[in-house]
Amino acid sequence: MGDRPLKVAILGCGVVGSQVVRLLEEQADDLAARVGRPVELAGVAVRRIDAPRDVELPAGLLTTDAEALVARDDVDLVVEVIGGIEPARTLILSALEHGASVVTANKALLAEDGPTLFEAAEKAGRDLYYEAAVAGAIPILRPLRESLAGDRVTRVLGIVNGTTNFILDKMDTSGAGFAEALEEAQDLGYAEADPTADVEGFDAAAKAAILASLAFHSRVTAADVHREGISDVTAADIASAREMGCVVKLLAICELRPGTDGPGGGDETVAVRVHPAMIPRSHPLASVREAYNAVFVESDAAGQLMFYGPGAGGAPTASAVMGDLVTVARNLVAGTRGVGESAYADRAVLPMGETRTRYHVGIDVDDRAGVLAAIAQAFAEHDVSIQTMRQDGRGDDAQLVLVSHGATDAQLSATVEHLRGMDIVRDVTSVMRVEGADDQ
Amino acid sequence: MGDRPLKVAILGCGVVGSQVVRLLEEQADDLAARVGRPVELAGVAVRRIDAPRDVELPAGLLTTDAEALVARDDVDLVVEVIGGIEPARTLILSALEHGASVVTANKALLAEDGPTLFEAAEKAGRDLYYEAAVAGAIPILRPLRESLAGDRVTRVLGIVNGTTNFILDKMDTSGAGFAEALEEAQDLGYAEADPTADVEGFDAAAKAAILASLAFHSRVTAADVHREGISDVTAADIASAREMGCVVKLLAICELRPGTDGPGGGDETVAVRVHPAMIPRSHPLASVREAYNAVFVESDAAGQLMFYGPGAGGAPTASAVMGDLVTVARNLVAGTRGVGESAYADRAVLPMGETRTRYHVGIDVDDRAGVLAAIAQAFAEHDVSIQTMRQDGRGDDAQLVLVSHGATDAQLSATVEHLRGMDIVRDVTSVMRVEGADDQ
Repeated sequence: MGDRPLKVAILGCGVVGSQVVRLLEEQADDLAARVGRPVELAGVAVRRIDAPRDVELPAGLLTTDAEALVARDDVDLVVEVIGGIEPARTLILSALEHGASVVTANKALLAEDGPTLFEAAEKAGRDLYYEAAVAGAIPILRPLRESLAGDRVTRVLGIVNGTTNFILDKMDTSGAGFAEALEEAQDLGYAEADPTADVEGFDAAAKAAILASLAFHSRVTAADVHREGISDVTAADIASAREMGCVVKLLAICELRPGTDGPGGGDETVAVRVHPAMIPRSHPLASVREAYNAVFVESDAAGQLMFYGPGAGGAPTASAVMGDLVTVARNLVAGTRGVGESAYADRAVLPMGETRTRYHVGIDVDDRAGVLAAIAQAFAEHDVSIQTMRQDGRGDDAQLVLVSHGATDAQLSATVEHLRGMDIVRDVTSVMRVEGADDQ
Repeated sequence: MGDRPLKVAILGCGVVGSQVVRLLEEQADDLAARVGRPVELAGVAVRRIDAPRDVELPAGLLTTDAEALVARDDVDLVVEVIGGIEPARTLILSALEHGASVVTANKALLAEDGPTLFEAAEKAGRDLYYEAAVAGAIPILRPLRESLAGDRVTRVLGIVNGTTNFILDKMDTSGAGFAEALEEAQDLGYAEADPTADVEGFDAAAKAAILASLAFHSRVTAADVHREGISDVTAADIASAREMGCVVKLLAICELRPGTDGPGGGDETVAVRVHPAMIPRSHPLASVREAYNAVFVESDAAGQLMFYGPGAGGAPTASAVMGDLVTVARNLVAGTRGVGESAYADRAVLPMGETRTRYHVGIDVDDRAGVLAAIAQAFAEHDVSIQTMRQDGRGDDAQLVLVSHGATDAQLSATVEHLRGMDIVRDVTSVMRVEGADDQ
């Protein structure tokens, strides 16, 4: 391609796209020095030319014809920050076919149909980078793909959704209920008017699928991820967690599970889930406050690592996009490609019922002789071992709080069903999984 | 190089080297899949063939002739984990000249003579990677070199020495003095019999030079780093920090300082220093306990990021070496190179006296009228503004605790000298810099 400047097309000029445009302009000299060639804007595709936006663009760079833009011969690099499945997928595929490398922040598309995109990139001999798709500015995909490529990652625990972390943190610090905390998040711009994608865990599930794919060199899609949101988390749950020295977080959990040959054997599986969970306050993730994100990684040799930072927002997400853009641009200049998809291990995804977890269970029971024995027996019948049990008497009833040892989710959920059917049980007041301890 | 296996030579088979050997063997299948070619051990250079070591090696792989090993035609990749300046430097240079790429964990050598190595790698068209040189297993160099390559890093604050963090954490939690905490660190294997390199900050200063070079695209060597260790930190300093809601950490601090044109101008400078400092307990670095490391990064677009994990130890350091090894091996297979040295910005290093910091100063004074005014006047004479001042009367003397606003280190140290010469000042009991707040 000679020594001409690299040309970048940007699809979308919203919160993230406008920051990418700004950084491309402000850092032009640094980018040229780091890439080895000037990097110039070829065009920005938008839905409406005259919409108000945060950045001033030279006349003639805006277009509503995204398809024509990605097909242009002089475009070397396409940044997709439209989001959603279509037209993003069609445009990315077209960009690759026309010989451009692609940087995207599109977690939903990657989690739904990543393999199609990766195959297209492979076929085109171009890069497809997507650091911004998970945890905003936090470098987590590159460390998983490259820094830990000589290690064996066994678990990833992520706080990857800022909206839900803000809400849960607010509930923890102020004692507010879910509805009240959500309203505050909406007032402050941390939650959208329709908060479903965030509070019901869809956003975190897409990110979990991407993290699990990279960590375990397998194909995991959003449909493989067991998902529960936080809308049922109550102030009582939060208080109960606090009494146990825990805090409630919405976690994206990706685990490598030993197969019949044990750890490292050929039939290891992958367990991927998103749900609220109690973690000990001493766990590094417990101190992740407000709308911040963090990803905690466990591996055989490195041990425990954590990556922390802003998980959303225009400028932070644009920082991750720009990092990818520099890498991809360097690869173009060098006539090479970065690491593509790595799915060689092809591990199966374990159904949620077979996934090992621990449960925290709060139960209101009659306060009379034999109750403890009957409750303990219910756990034993399902082969679930109890780690701790605490009883608070109050009049003629009592509140029991139990934490189980690790067992399959099916065993644990059957135990809770069993408890709910017992005469001496007035109510199962709280059920929540417990994570971040060694015994899983 | 056809499809033959890639051959790796390892220099040194101590704590780190033996773990690299183990991982190369245990993960052979995964490495082959990730690199695209089998990766095999060509040989291991040691000082004594019959020394006891943690790993069993096939006969014939051990050699005492490191120079012959790195010069072998069939060696594609050399891992240097001997440490120290010589013979490590000569061996790395010879390996590059003979066409091998190099992975090293040698912070001392990189901080002293990095440019010589980078130039040799550039000339040879080979990679020189060194993630393991800073903060052990924590991926921090790759994020700085690549993830943040499209952003503008303005500050790096690192807890990059596990020994000193263990000692300071012990002093904070138990009230122990420095000597007692050091002894415990030695008993537990966190400190060496001669702890000078750690407690006097030499190790951290080498890492600071490497971090500053990468963060600010300039050449910074260990000689450029202002260095103070922790051996003068007293139990009273720790208690004083606690009263202020702070904790004392040994920090590696790398800052981009605006030049005459302000931020982003052409004459920005770099300030690099290692010294004990007070940071607020609410700062993410404050919760880094025991021998863990963490690096806190501030940049224009990403905001605040933190990278946390084990900063030393055989297996964690080997994890970082292995990550580099996979990247370098992939590059060899693809016939390309990764990012080399980036020193285009060529920023000057600011002398410590001109570096802006804040001071915490504890003073015993006579408790009589006019004392406060006289002390405040001393600060004013040196153009240092006081942020907070607290006085505790006790009999006929009083304890004053002051925290300054940001000023140059020369102004602040002149202020302290001035205080020491005042009649009303009985003793300056504690002087420590304060970091991690916005006002610097």
